[in-house]
This record gives sequence, structure tokens and C-alpha cells, in this order.
Amino acid sequence: MAWHLSRALEQAGHRIVTVYSRTLVKAEFLAKALLQAHPTQELDFSLVPAAIFIVALKDDVVAEVLQKAIFPPDSLVVHTSGSVPISVFKVQSNIRGGVFYPVQTFSKAVAINLKQTPIGVEASTPADVFFLKKLAASISEKVFDLPTEARKIIHLAAVFACNFTNHLLGISHDLLTQQQVEFSVLEPLVMETIQKALAHSPFQVQTGPAVRFDQNIVAQHQQLLQDKPDYAVIYTLLTESIQKKAQEIGQPDQK
Amino acid sequence: MAWHLSRALEQAGHRIVTVYSRTLVKAEFLAKALLQAHPTQELDFSLVPAAIFIVALKDDVVAEVLQKAIFPPDSLVVHTSGSVPISVFKVQSNIRGGVFYPVQTFSKAVAINLKQTPIGVEASTPADVFFLKKLAASISEKVFDLPTEARKIIHLAAVFACNFTNHLLGISHDLLTQQQVEFSVLEPLVMETIQKALAHSPFQVQTGPAVRFDQNIVAQHQQLLQDKPDYAVIYTLLTESIQKKAQEIGQPDQK
Repeated sequence: MAWHLSRALEQAGHRIVTVYSRTLVKAEFLAKALLQAHPTQELDFSLVPAAIFIVALKDDVVAEVLQKAIFPPDSLVVHTSGSVPISVFKVQSNIRGGVFYPVQTFSKAVAINLKQTPIGVEASTPADVFFLKKLAASISEKVFDLPTEARKIIHLAAVFACNFTNHLLGISHDLLTQQQVEFSVLEPLVMETIQKALAHSPFQVQTGPAVRFDQNIVAQHQQLLQDKPDYAVIYTLLTESIQKKAQEIGQPDQK
Repeated sequence: MAWHLSRALEQAGHRIVTVYSRTLVKAEFLAKALLQAHPTQELDFSLVPAAIFIVALKDDVVAEVLQKAIFPPDSLVVHTSGSVPISVFKVQSNIRGGVFYPVQTFSKAVAINLKQTPIGVEASTPADVFFLKKLAASISEKVFDLPTEARKIIHLAAVFACNFTNHLLGISHDLLTQQQVEFSVLEPLVMETIQKALAHSPFQVQTGPAVRFDQNIVAQHQQLLQDKPDYAVIYTLLTESIQKKAQEIGQPDQK
């Protein structure tokens, strides 16, 4: 996150003054990729002249770092997390807290088109909201107000749409490779499925044996999974959930 | 399936002689999109001069149609289904059965790049396998031998990777729209997640609160789902499955 965000901000004309990491080598690595940033592993930023401090850390360490850090009085400090509430900044009485949340997953090795990445912002004063929106708009075309409660829902929805989806792809990968079938055989089908789901209301375009109430195939699949009880439980639960939803919405594919 | 396959075969230089549908209007509709095909709703093909009969029907009606249809003696008849075994052709003693399985999902409205669609073939004689591979290679660059057992595994893996994934996207869509958040806010994140999963072993690139064993966030999400018990059960089961898998493989993201 820090890697992609800092470079994008610099390319948009902003200056990165200081880069912090618990590990100095990591701070140095990022600082070297920037124009004139100073790397540090100290959490004392009291002499750093910055319009904003961006805490681009994993959700579960944001609170801890905020507690230890020292900022200049009345600094604007934001985090980039989907699940951490804005109230996390209350541990510091002399700063203004905010959220700058790019709805995207980042890996250092993969270039991300930040222009198309939605960025949701939240702050405690209209002036800070205005500032964060302007900053976000300098790197993304999709900037929006995102209060803590809605941000939590987006984060939860992303767990279903991304984390859980990845796990299902993992199960799929596991089933195929155990039979010496290349996972790539499913790639066009997966891409087509995802594109169709994103272009529609996914429940309305559900396909497969569950929504067809094809109990022969369902039984055959459960048979194939008999020595994989963990996968069988997931298969049964999701099949039931698809069928329940189909009955609720009067699924067109349902027979 | 019939729509896309017949047109692709024609474009590759093959001739479609007859188009069958239970509903004559549907047969006529497809026949009109072809060069010189004859539409019919009769299952008597005994006078149809064809090198191959392709039964491009939903999995659960293939057997029924095969039972009723009349083919010229010693015809090659294939179905296009992921889950129907090649033994389904045993109901007819005077035909040679086979499978011609494009690993893709088809909607009439959406153009599909068949060239990139893997096609798995199976037949009972080497000559028929050779014929089916040649036919498949005329429309796709990804043709492979696919015995019934491996085809069943691909179909099962596709249920996890596509049908179940679509359902999770549906839950995600439902959670967001209930809070007046556009589903499209997750689109870049979903696309990035899927591309990353397809380029790696998905279990190895798992992210999110489950694999981080971030029980605060997990508890927060379960709280958000307290009035949606069906979704809460899925959340809990998939979270546990991700954590179990992470412990099994020594997930790098695990803390």
C-alpha cells in the first residue's frame, strides 16, 4: 500500500518527506524509490513538516502505531484501512484523524491502476474532508465520501467477494492439481463468470447444478468429495444457500 | 452453447445441416443465423447426412433426448456437458458416443472467444478421438484429451470456482446495496483478486482477516451479520476453512 500510494502521490506532484517502517531497511528501500524522502524507524515525527501523515499499515497494527507515534500538534493523520474506525485516533488528543481508503489490494510486484481505484475518505471537519478529497482526486478518478459504518460494510462485502472467493479458487486449484489437471483450464470460465457477475446482479445470473436443483449432479459431487470432508461441508452449505436464494427471488434458471 | 458452437463451426468451414430444438421457433431462430441449416423439432435424424451429431443441451436433459432420438446407424454422437458420463450413449446400441466439452459458460447475448476456450474431448475409439480433436482444433487453440473421471473433477472444480464464487459475489452485492453502496466500488478489487489467484496458487496469496487470524475484525463482521444468519454461517465456515488451510500450509501471511 505504502509503496504504490507514495509513488502515485509523488507522480501527482506531492512531496513525500519521510518514510517510516519498523524495519529501517524497508523504509530505506521505499525511500530510494522516491525523490527525496527520509527513511526512519523512529515513531517521533514531531519535527516533520508535513501537511498529512498517512498510516498505511495492516488493519491490526494501526492502533498500536498510533498510540506510540508523536506528531506535530494539530497534524492531519489518516489511516488507509477498511475496517479500522475513525475513533482509533482518539488515543492522540492533539491531532485531527481521517481515513483515506483505496478499495484495492496491493502487492509490491504488481502495478495497480490507481486512477480506476475507488478511494473513500472520511474526516472530522469539512475542511479536512475537502483536503482529503482533493488529495485523492489527484491520483484517482473515483473519490467518494465514506463514513465508518459504510466502510465497514464495504470491508465485509470485500471479504465475501475477494477473500472467500480466493479460498474457493484455492479449493478448485487443489481439486484439479490432485488429478493432474492444470488450474489454467478454468481461467476463461472464471473470467467470464466474474465479468458476468460484475455486470449484473449476481444472484440473477447464477448457474450450475445447485440453482438447477439438479440433485443427481449434487449427489455425484458429494460422492467425489467423500474423502475431503472440509470441502464437502462447504459444498453442501453453499449449494443449500444458492437453492434458498433461488426460491426467495424466483430464480429464472430454477426448474 | 448451440448458438456459439454452431456459428463458430460454420466460420471454421464446417456445414451445419440440421438444427433441433424442442421448440421449433428456437430451432428456426438459430437456423436463420446459419448459412443453410434446416430447423426441426423432431428427434428423428435417420435421414440426416452428418459426420457428427452434437447434443448441446443442459446436463440434466442429455440422457432423455438421447433415449428418444433416432440417428443413422453407426453415427458419431457427442454431448457437450461437463458432468454427463460417456456411458450415457449406451442407451443407443448403433451409435458411437463421444464428448466435446468446451470449458466455458455461454449466454446468447455475450460474444465468447472460442479460440481461447479449452475444449476437452473423449471418445471410445482412437479414430473418433482424432476426429473430435481435429474438429475442436478448428475453433480452439486449447484442445485436450479429457476422460470422464477428469471431466467430472473439472466440473466439480468449476462449481467451486464459478458457481459458488458467483453466489459469494451475490451476497457481497446484497450487503452493499442494502447500505446504498454501489456494487461497482468493489470491481477493481475483485478483478485484481481474481487475476492474482489465477496467476498463483490461490491458497498462497490468501489475504484478509481470516488468514491474519484477526479475531477482532472477524468478531466485528459476525456482529454486522447478526440479522443475516444465512450469511453469518457461511462467513464462519469459510473463515474457519481459511484458517485451517493456513495452518496446514504454513501461510506466509499468517501471524
